[in-house]
Amino acid sequence: MAQTVTPPRGMRDFLPAEKARREHALSVIRGVYATHGFDEIETPVMEDSSRLHAGLGGDNEKLAFAVMKRGLTPDDLAAAAASGDALSLADLGLRYDLTVPLARFYATHRAALPPVFRAIQIAPVWRAERPQKGRYRQFVQCDIDIIGEAGPLAELELLTATVGALDALGLEGCRIRLNDRRILAGILGSWGVPDELRERALITIDKLDKIGPDGVAAELATLGVDRPGIADELDALTNADWHLMDSVPRGAPNELAFALQPAETWPPNPPKWLDLEAYRDLLALREALPGTPIDFDPTLVRGMGYYTGTIFEIAHPDHGYSLGGGGRYDHMIGRFLGHEVPACGFSIGFERIVDLLAVRDEGRPRSVVLVHDRDLEPAALLALKHELVASGMRVRFERRAKNLRGLLDRVTADGFDAWAPVGAETTDAASLAFRDLGE
Amino acid sequence: MAQTVTPPRGMRDFLPAEKARREHALSVIRGVYATHGFDEIETPVMEDSSRLHAGLGGDNEKLAFAVMKRGLTPDDLAAAAASGDALSLADLGLRYDLTVPLARFYATHRAALPPVFRAIQIAPVWRAERPQKGRYRQFVQCDIDIIGEAGPLAELELLTATVGALDALGLEGCRIRLNDRRILAGILGSWGVPDELRERALITIDKLDKIGPDGVAAELATLGVDRPGIADELDALTNADWHLMDSVPRGAPNELAFALQPAETWPPNPPKWLDLEAYRDLLALREALPGTPIDFDPTLVRGMGYYTGTIFEIAHPDHGYSLGGGGRYDHMIGRFLGHEVPACGFSIGFERIVDLLAVRDEGRPRSVVLVHDRDLEPAALLALKHELVASGMRVRFERRAKNLRGLLDRVTADGFDAWAPVGAETTDAASLAFRDLGE
Repeated sequence: MAQTVTPPRGMRDFLPAEKARREHALSVIRGVYATHGFDEIETPVMEDSSRLHAGLGGDNEKLAFAVMKRGLTPDDLAAAAASGDALSLADLGLRYDLTVPLARFYATHRAALPPVFRAIQIAPVWRAERPQKGRYRQFVQCDIDIIGEAGPLAELELLTATVGALDALGLEGCRIRLNDRRILAGILGSWGVPDELRERALITIDKLDKIGPDGVAAELATLGVDRPGIADELDALTNADWHLMDSVPRGAPNELAFALQPAETWPPNPPKWLDLEAYRDLLALREALPGTPIDFDPTLVRGMGYYTGTIFEIAHPDHGYSLGGGGRYDHMIGRFLGHEVPACGFSIGFERIVDLLAVRDEGRPRSVVLVHDRDLEPAALLALKHELVASGMRVRFERRAKNLRGLLDRVTADGFDAWAPVGAETTDAASLAFRDLGE
Repeated sequence: MAQTVTPPRGMRDFLPAEKARREHALSVIRGVYATHGFDEIETPVMEDSSRLHAGLGGDNEKLAFAVMKRGLTPDDLAAAAASGDALSLADLGLRYDLTVPLARFYATHRAALPPVFRAIQIAPVWRAERPQKGRYRQFVQCDIDIIGEAGPLAELELLTATVGALDALGLEGCRIRLNDRRILAGILGSWGVPDELRERALITIDKLDKIGPDGVAAELATLGVDRPGIADELDALTNADWHLMDSVPRGAPNELAFALQPAETWPPNPPKWLDLEAYRDLLALREALPGTPIDFDPTLVRGMGYYTGTIFEIAHPDHGYSLGGGGRYDHMIGRFLGHEVPACGFSIGFERIVDLLAVRDEGRPRSVVLVHDRDLEPAALLALKHELVASGMRVRFERRAKNLRGLLDRVTADGFDAWAPVGAETTDAASLAFRDLGE
């Protein structure tokens, strides 16, 4: 049977070493989130197609893998051919995020959940993206969400739990970038961006890293937003040293930037576009987290359309990309309920961080390899193993090979600590002569 | 938006208590399998459609969820309508078991794996079955497989690891039912079943529990197998007290049953249909596992067509159904490689056992609830929580409710150990007055 034996395009197998690293990281994250009062839940990987395509998933809806109805008849196929609507043949789809399923879960089970529900979801999602380096069609998301808490305690608990998880993983030195969609709305308003263009203008600003202030200004101009000076204001906003927020920002010459200084140095009449409530909320968050390094970044956008308030990202000085992010989305969870429910969430970019982690050995059992002759009694081998496993060791058998050096190199790479030869004269575990590996 | 908010048909959500119970059980199983020298791997949930429908999955192939190609054109849909072949629109499918993906994984990565590879796979599979009690469309399988070991050491390691995992879960008292496909082949041969009907005859015998010896004999007769006395022989086989195997079986009057006694009491001329090698292998397995209760059951079939040798199931005296099973399948793993590779596997019926487990509390952090007034400073609340979390506790906030009794009952049910009120006068963790819950 000559055929390719790779996994499907853009999806990955995990061999033992990589799988162990991933499971270890996930169990650390799970443990920290649990102590912070979050509870893990699970939903099926599939949701009804109509729910996945209800307009809550943004651009990700187009990337959903569709699952075909069972028992399709030739008439069904002919009808789809006539309408050209392939999706009419699908009743289910694989989730592209964990937020749409959470909204559905909450609507299903709210009567059984606490009034303020703190959810952990650690699970794979699927997107039919063009595969590229670091971007996969199946990947794990680690989300925490607080549903039913309108006040800043939600943001505070999410941020401290996340920083706690990253610390426990050994990723010290993370910084939080913080903004609020209401601040962005004010900036856009000051530029004369009409409400109906706000989404598209935000998507443009989100490209600031890639296309620069001039690029953003040019793209906004194609939307009809061509106020002079936008590029300069963006430049000033991005170059300001916002992360202190308790002194006048460096390089912030314009009214916009100046207005975003802390309250005590405010001009008496802040510009009327500035959302004062949002601004005070950001200051309060920062004050409540004295030990956490927070950078205010008025140009931070976050991609999804559903954010309504605070938005945040995790940055690390050694890495040019975000390690996670989230924000407040008060209009979404209630979509399947019929009334609004406040919500705020944070997602760790698990696929990005797992490669940064050092392998940790704590709590691992002593791992030994028994290299046995080929003609030994299986029952005798099993009795040896039984004795070692009962004493708390991890035990693997290997048949003796001509190239013993190669065998020992291989099991060393697999993470084993010691080996012993097993011959006919080895009658019990006490007669094993262990030698350390990797020396 | 009035719409149903249930999970897709036949699939389940897991709320916190149930999710915690499942994750605990999985981590116990993972830990035991690891100490027994098995290594966990992971494959994507989807495989190429052609691979899932290559004839290795038996009846499960018909139950596979099919994933539609992306970017289907009206021409594609018209072509499918013309041919009536809905599957031509699918390029991927959700796995219906973990064995087909394991065969593909081994073919992809064999150069990076040890010569004898011991794999753990703990992951969901999907089958579009008619939902019924205890049967779901998404469910977790816990498989261990040993690839590359032709001898009985494979069976022995699988059986001891599985018994170890069940013991660690607190499911003491399990028994192993053991048989060999070669014994079954001999029995069928003695009844004159031709090779080409063997599969169908095995499926019939597999129904013995439900339709009884007369039912099986009648169904075999419809296949053209109508030797007299089959029902009596089946009756004798099932009623024999096989689990001792070292005395003459009770109630086994016929040649068949008598021939299956242990070697030392054999008649000098065993019937020529008896596969002596298979029989000696079963005796050897039993001798090598003196502490493990093993029942020889010559009518045990196991459903899948790919088994070639030993087959086994886990039974528990308190439960009428199998808790797991497996066997040797030497012709399958090599299907994507082009040459045969011996293999043997065991699957725990996770969905069946998880409901039998007592909840265990070992190693759980002390869990406390802080019941706070509504108008407290979030920063002050967060500082309190921070102090308790840092001391190793699990902490959840609850807003004070009029019905405090109801609140406390709810958090007790959620597994919390103690609670404390938080008011304006609570300035640090030392001033909290904890009261035990559930008293």
